[in-house]
Amino acid sequence: MTSVITLLTDYGLEDGYVAACHGVIARIAPQTRVIDVCHVVPSGDVRRGAAILAQTIPYLPPGVHIGAVDPGAGGGRRAVAVEAGPHVFIGPDNGLLSWAIHASGGARAAYEITNEELFLRPVSPTFHGRDMYAPVAARLCTGHKAADLGQEIPLTRLVSLPAPTSVLREGLVEGEVVSVDRYGNTQLSISSGDLTALGVRVGDTLAVWLGRRQLSMPFRESFSAVAPGELVAFADSADLIAIAVNCGDAAQRLGLPPGARVRLSPAP
Amino acid sequence: MTSVITLLTDYGLEDGYVAACHGVIARIAPQTRVIDVCHVVPSGDVRRGAAILAQTIPYLPPGVHIGAVDPGAGGGRRAVAVEAGPHVFIGPDNGLLSWAIHASGGARAAYEITNEELFLRPVSPTFHGRDMYAPVAARLCTGHKAADLGQEIPLTRLVSLPAPTSVLREGLVEGEVVSVDRYGNTQLSISSGDLTALGVRVGDTLAVWLGRRQLSMPFRESFSAVAPGELVAFADSADLIAIAVNCGDAAQRLGLPPGARVRLSPAP
Amino acid sequence: MTSVITLLTDYGLEDGYVAACHGVIARIAPQTRVIDVCHVVPSGDVRRGAAILAQTIPYLPPGVHIGAVDPGAGGGRRAVAVEAGPHVFIGPDNGLLSWAIHASGGARAAYEITNEELFLRPVSPTFHGRDMYAPVAARLCTGHKAADLGQEIPLTRLVSLPAPTSVLREGLVEGEVVSVDRYGNTQLSISSGDLTALGVRVGDTLAVWLGRRQLSMPFRESFSAVAPGELVAFADSADLIAIAVNCGDAAQRLGLPPGARVRLSPAP
Repeated sequence: MTSVITLLTDYGLEDGYVAACHGVIARIAPQTRVIDVCHVVPSGDVRRGAAILAQTIPYLPPGVHIGAVDPGAGGGRRAVAVEAGPHVFIGPDNGLLSWAIHASGGARAAYEITNEELFLRPVSPTFHGRDMYAPVAARLCTGHKAADLGQEIPLTRLVSLPAPTSVLREGLVEGEVVSVDRYGNTQLSISSGDLTALGVRVGDTLAVWLGRRQLSMPFRESFSAVAPGELVAFADSADLIAIAVNCGDAAQRLGLPPGARVRLSPAP
Repeated sequence: MTSVITLLTDYGLEDGYVAACHGVIARIAPQTRVIDVCHVVPSGDVRRGAAILAQTIPYLPPGVHIGAVDPGAGGGRRAVAVEAGPHVFIGPDNGLLSWAIHASGGARAAYEITNEELFLRPVSPTFHGRDMYAPVAARLCTGHKAADLGQEIPLTRLVSLPAPTSVLREGLVEGEVVSVDRYGNTQLSISSGDLTALGVRVGDTLAVWLGRRQLSMPFRESFSAVAPGELVAFADSADLIAIAVNCGDAAQRLGLPPGARVRLSPAP
Repeated sequence: MTSVITLLTDYGLEDGYVAACHGVIARIAPQTRVIDVCHVVPSGDVRRGAAILAQTIPYLPPGVHIGAVDPGAGGGRRAVAVEAGPHVFIGPDNGLLSWAIHASGGARAAYEITNEELFLRPVSPTFHGRDMYAPVAARLCTGHKAADLGQEIPLTRLVSLPAPTSVLREGLVEGEVVSVDRYGNTQLSISSGDLTALGVRVGDTLAVWLGRRQLSMPFRESFSAVAPGELVAFADSADLIAIAVNCGDAAQRLGLPPGARVRLSPAP
């Protein structure tokens, strides 16, 4: 029996949608602690939701983790519960959960959520978070097992999002911008291990290609190792390479939205 | 003795105002769970706050529910505690609580909050949430009764907001935009029951008048039943008719702010 | 042993950064209550963070209070734990905590946080909140003492921010805009005591100089004591003088950003 539920949604904060989920949980499982992971995932942005959940899950306690970013809500895609590591992930089978499942060691078992006796009824076709995910998660905290939710699904049938990848070749590594945070730091799909494989060490200078533009910037331990206003690359808190401007906004200065291609190599 | 307090305010998230309320509650009633309903109600927008609270209350556990949206704070309107269903509502007597009270089965008893011994003192004239509502709510969770707060008020003296209404006539139903959510979905004051009364069923086509403009759109179970970018009407998670664009922003596309008049009828 | 942790950061709500801190705390100290003070402090704005924490701390329960607004993260400034009143403050030694410490009666003891056995490892140089402050705070709630965190520091070595001040002279008081809240109310560094010292009472009229502009406005108990759209000064919920427009935005109307100089005197 777990006693923590976490919530990641694109419901926003302007309405009572998130509170309705909290309320449903509190009514069924009053002792369960609820942690909000994020509720301002850009509307319908499954990849962004997947990235946030995957980067946060290593720090969350064992529990039931609800993801609700679902541009196809009401359109017939199935709802699933997936056991991975010490966690149960609950949400739409649209790939939202897939990176967090991978980060938790991979799926051990998956179930389609169909047992209406565990839902709030009637189920609104557009608010599965409130009527299906929240009550089901709460019941997992009060004694039900994932197998009670519905039929087991072969793990190979779960929808997975293609992960942002990096490619090492001929002395450079190529990847993409995974996300841009509040500070304008751009996180790449390139890990610090990729740079190590290229022989790059903290203190070196990097050559950075953004399309046809080429820049060079120092590779340091942190953005604050350079003067305010200067560009810098560093291994961020998810151990991915980030391009930043100390006290500034790198994404804005360089015009780097999520998905933009970036290549890195040791400066000559 | 209840053990849940919920908070709905227009305090915003940029300051420590909400945290001060949480802190006051935690000091007086450390075992009480606090659920945030919404804190970004548009500043002073009593109707919007009333709508959010009324649509969320059916999903909240029995408890004490604080509402603090009060453009007249410090101006002499009274503070009230109202018992309705399994709940006690606390806030200004300006109508903010009235729709949630109605949704909870109507007021059973009401009290003016005047017992200063239960307040934080001195009471700031502009922060009743922190100095009056939060401590009073917390004390209701630690053994006080609503009758301890002050004199009973006749229920007919409570301020009520006129509810958004729908009017059925001659084969059409007329209402207004109640709210616009984060996705740009416009919720109307027209219920799915109104459409049923007109003989409209899921799968039919609706004629929609927005002032002098006339549109037609499908009435479906969910926004995702139409192609991305297309208009659709559906019964939303509060069982009210919403006009949406799948993967788009209907309020922006159609220019439909809260309060705009809308008429619906079966398409010929 | 305390059982409350509060969090003030500039992490924003768009990512999972805040949730990672909650998760780390929940894993180490599952019984501890966590209160979010504010997470949208403008990026790197240490003074704004300090003001929010100082104005909220009088209402927070005894506990461990984390502050993480740190434009120099990863740049070598030390992390500290400071005991003041019934509280322990944890964060960077950059002045962020200094006003709250002062508001809590001043520091009794301070420790540099260096005991890596209490950290999450490896410590990300750019995410001390997750890897250092959160686990350390949680361990203070499960039996460790501040003295376990590292060496004691002389109190005189703690970094303090210069506090916003007011100066009384020749029948007027001069100060600055400390903050602008969500409503556009501008909070000044002038207390109600300053006005009392000038002989100003509620009901009087104030002369207000903003640079070369001079205005006059009533001094009242609350913004709602004047007609909608009118300017007013009042003692706000932190007992500082605020300039507001009833149902309007004074900061926008008057062009008053934080830091702007303001002088007040009794109107002739």
